[in-house]
Amino acid sequence: MPSKQAESASQTPALRIGLAGLGTVGAGVIQLLDQNADLIARRAGRRIEVSAVSARNRNRDRGVDLSAFTWEDDPGALAQRDDVDVVVELMGGSDGPALTLARAALQSGKPLVTANKAMIAHHGLELANAAGERHLPLKFEAAVAGGIPVIKGVREGTAANRILRVIGILNGTCNYILTRMEKEGLEFASVLEDAQRLGYAEADPTFDIDGTDTAHKLAILASLAFGCRPMFDRIETTGISDVRLADIHQAAALGYKVRLIGLAEMVDGQLTQRVHPTLVPVNHPLAAVEGPLNAIVVDGDFVNSLLFMGAGAGSGPTASAVVADLIDIARGENGPAFAMPTADLEQCVAAGPDRREVNAYIRLTVQDRPGVLAEITAVLAAAGVSIERLVQPAPAGDGTALVVLQTHRTSEQAVLLALREMMALPITSDNALFMPILPQNG
Amino acid sequence: MPSKQAESASQTPALRIGLAGLGTVGAGVIQLLDQNADLIARRAGRRIEVSAVSARNRNRDRGVDLSAFTWEDDPGALAQRDDVDVVVELMGGSDGPALTLARAALQSGKPLVTANKAMIAHHGLELANAAGERHLPLKFEAAVAGGIPVIKGVREGTAANRILRVIGILNGTCNYILTRMEKEGLEFASVLEDAQRLGYAEADPTFDIDGTDTAHKLAILASLAFGCRPMFDRIETTGISDVRLADIHQAAALGYKVRLIGLAEMVDGQLTQRVHPTLVPVNHPLAAVEGPLNAIVVDGDFVNSLLFMGAGAGSGPTASAVVADLIDIARGENGPAFAMPTADLEQCVAAGPDRREVNAYIRLTVQDRPGVLAEITAVLAAAGVSIERLVQPAPAGDGTALVVLQTHRTSEQAVLLALREMMALPITSDNALFMPILPQNG
Repeated sequence: MPSKQAESASQTPALRIGLAGLGTVGAGVIQLLDQNADLIARRAGRRIEVSAVSARNRNRDRGVDLSAFTWEDDPGALAQRDDVDVVVELMGGSDGPALTLARAALQSGKPLVTANKAMIAHHGLELANAAGERHLPLKFEAAVAGGIPVIKGVREGTAANRILRVIGILNGTCNYILTRMEKEGLEFASVLEDAQRLGYAEADPTFDIDGTDTAHKLAILASLAFGCRPMFDRIETTGISDVRLADIHQAAALGYKVRLIGLAEMVDGQLTQRVHPTLVPVNHPLAAVEGPLNAIVVDGDFVNSLLFMGAGAGSGPTASAVVADLIDIARGENGPAFAMPTADLEQCVAAGPDRREVNAYIRLTVQDRPGVLAEITAVLAAAGVSIERLVQPAPAGDGTALVVLQTHRTSEQAVLLALREMMALPITSDNALFMPILPQNG
Repeated sequence: MPSKQAESASQTPALRIGLAGLGTVGAGVIQLLDQNADLIARRAGRRIEVSAVSARNRNRDRGVDLSAFTWEDDPGALAQRDDVDVVVELMGGSDGPALTLARAALQSGKPLVTANKAMIAHHGLELANAAGERHLPLKFEAAVAGGIPVIKGVREGTAANRILRVIGILNGTCNYILTRMEKEGLEFASVLEDAQRLGYAEADPTFDIDGTDTAHKLAILASLAFGCRPMFDRIETTGISDVRLADIHQAAALGYKVRLIGLAEMVDGQLTQRVHPTLVPVNHPLAAVEGPLNAIVVDGDFVNSLLFMGAGAGSGPTASAVVADLIDIARGENGPAFAMPTADLEQCVAAGPDRREVNAYIRLTVQDRPGVLAEITAVLAAAGVSIERLVQPAPAGDGTALVVLQTHRTSEQAVLLALREMMALPITSDNALFMPILPQNG
């Protein structure tokens, strides 16, 4: 029974949704729109109702009642329906049917809401152009950090600031794996297997583990933060599969936790964007982010440092973000997708490692014999890399030993060159690891 | 020299501001609008410029150049000026000139932006009514938690959710004092004095210390979160001046930090709103909030738990929030101030202590002699309050001793009754303290 308030909202015609993709998020959106229908009507000023849906398999049981909705086998047909005011794309995939539907929706004059980070990272500019030309909302809060309203936070909340830096833990699967390795003393492979069994990692976790998913989200955040066109192809991305339990132990001994960090920073007019397993000081807010949570730090010239933290994935949180976008549209919000007209977005210059200074963590496996450290330190000295700390844990007993180095602030390029030279020495095995160290205030 | 982008934005007429109040925040707004003018024009789609200003003292040096602005001795005159599109009220005070100006601005058809939590807590409904009737924006992001975009977070970011609970550290002065007591082992009075000297506390810190400022902010957040009319008068408020270093030590021994918490929660259709020094589990995100920072946890039925953290006060962060509101207005955002039309806000029922269950921390000063604990525990047993832990630190040596109790979950009313009875016993002195304990997941 609609409440008194919902009745007043019902004087405005409902906002009618065509929803493509009925996986866990799509089912969550349908459940949310049903369960909180009256509340949403009060807040949106009108009811939000699903008209039609589309998915690959009509007969799968998704735990939600679809009988009231028209079924379309072809998702693209949603864009043509007269009873659809807004298209919601939850199929995923950077191209293919998702992109076809997104283009069709905007070409048909229908606003688009999507949770598709890959599509927005790759084709966001094209879609924002199409939306802008027709004065249509294009919204993608759910594409970054699930339920955390960080797109809104950066696009609107910090809009008065020159943004200095965005740093995020943007992939719940990686954070779950790294924190379980840390807490339970397990190696990467066994935690990954367990995470897949428990549903914290996909059957094919490649895009999570190799950092691609984080890079998609970072490209979107960086575009909003710095007013640049999305530059996914210029993100330097390293995943977490080379992080060993020994690294987590050594990092802890040095006062750090290991997290997969996406970082975007404008320095001297050049945009650094990188995804990398990173040493985070234990008392930095991002070190406290555990399990599948996501968190983002946004540093602005007036606002100082803001932290947003919450569930970065999952049916409920992601549906919350999708429906928040729908409520914004129902309320009449219709600003440019990337915070400014696409014509005003700059083609920013990507910074290379020669432009970057880092404190570096380096882990090497070396032969366990005298003179090895002298050779390593000589390479570093020749490269101009100054060592802050050097740790040589007890040898493995197989003739090899770990060497862990923490450098003073230095050119990243020098570190990478030195690393390459060290790897060419006959004393090292081929599994060195470099990780940047996040400054306490960064 | 304006950039290419700023030029395209300059095709739309500038949004012209009349600004009343040139304290630290007002000066910050002027500095921000100047320093980031081109950036703001790109993001807002038009330039935002100050036309006229007003403050009590024309001749004070505020470190910003006011020569380009018309000066009005009477702030109310800003509402009448043809060259003012939006009035920004930064004078403070729940009534008086601030309220006069706010009413005049809306009556004159001008949108209003304010940082004035006291005015919004007391008169927000009236002002939102006036704004709604004329379809004018009324915005107050800066009124709660300074630079943190939590008004936007609750009003828009979590709009799809039934909100279960809002918990915040909303007063930087109190958090600064409590965390310095904790870290430096100092008593309240000496830290307060030092905080005043360093500018972390006002010359008259009454509204900070006694919890009123937190209650103002909580009333606003709760209204947005629960769709209730603001109920400042029904907030049970206890400040921090009775918190002793001994309490902080005892709390730490039990696994908690002491924070001034504002909590709003809807339970069985009744709204609990309370401001109280509270024991926060050490691994709860709010326990990590130190110094003058603010943080807010928002729990929703789909989004789960979100945390927003950042600078809760200060010139730059507060100016960031004020100008974010201006950018929203420049972009055309014009939804209801309290997320829904005022007619749809409910008159919610305030929950009393009889409706609340708490785990309680109780600290008593008692006579240092045998039998005292028996009398105390008998009172608690008679009230039906079950003790989880009882600690009796070493006696003071003056014939008195502390007793610290942690109760199992129980009726708050029973705790308060037992406390009153214990205070009436000849064995206690008159300075007992009760603090609720925040659950790990709450």
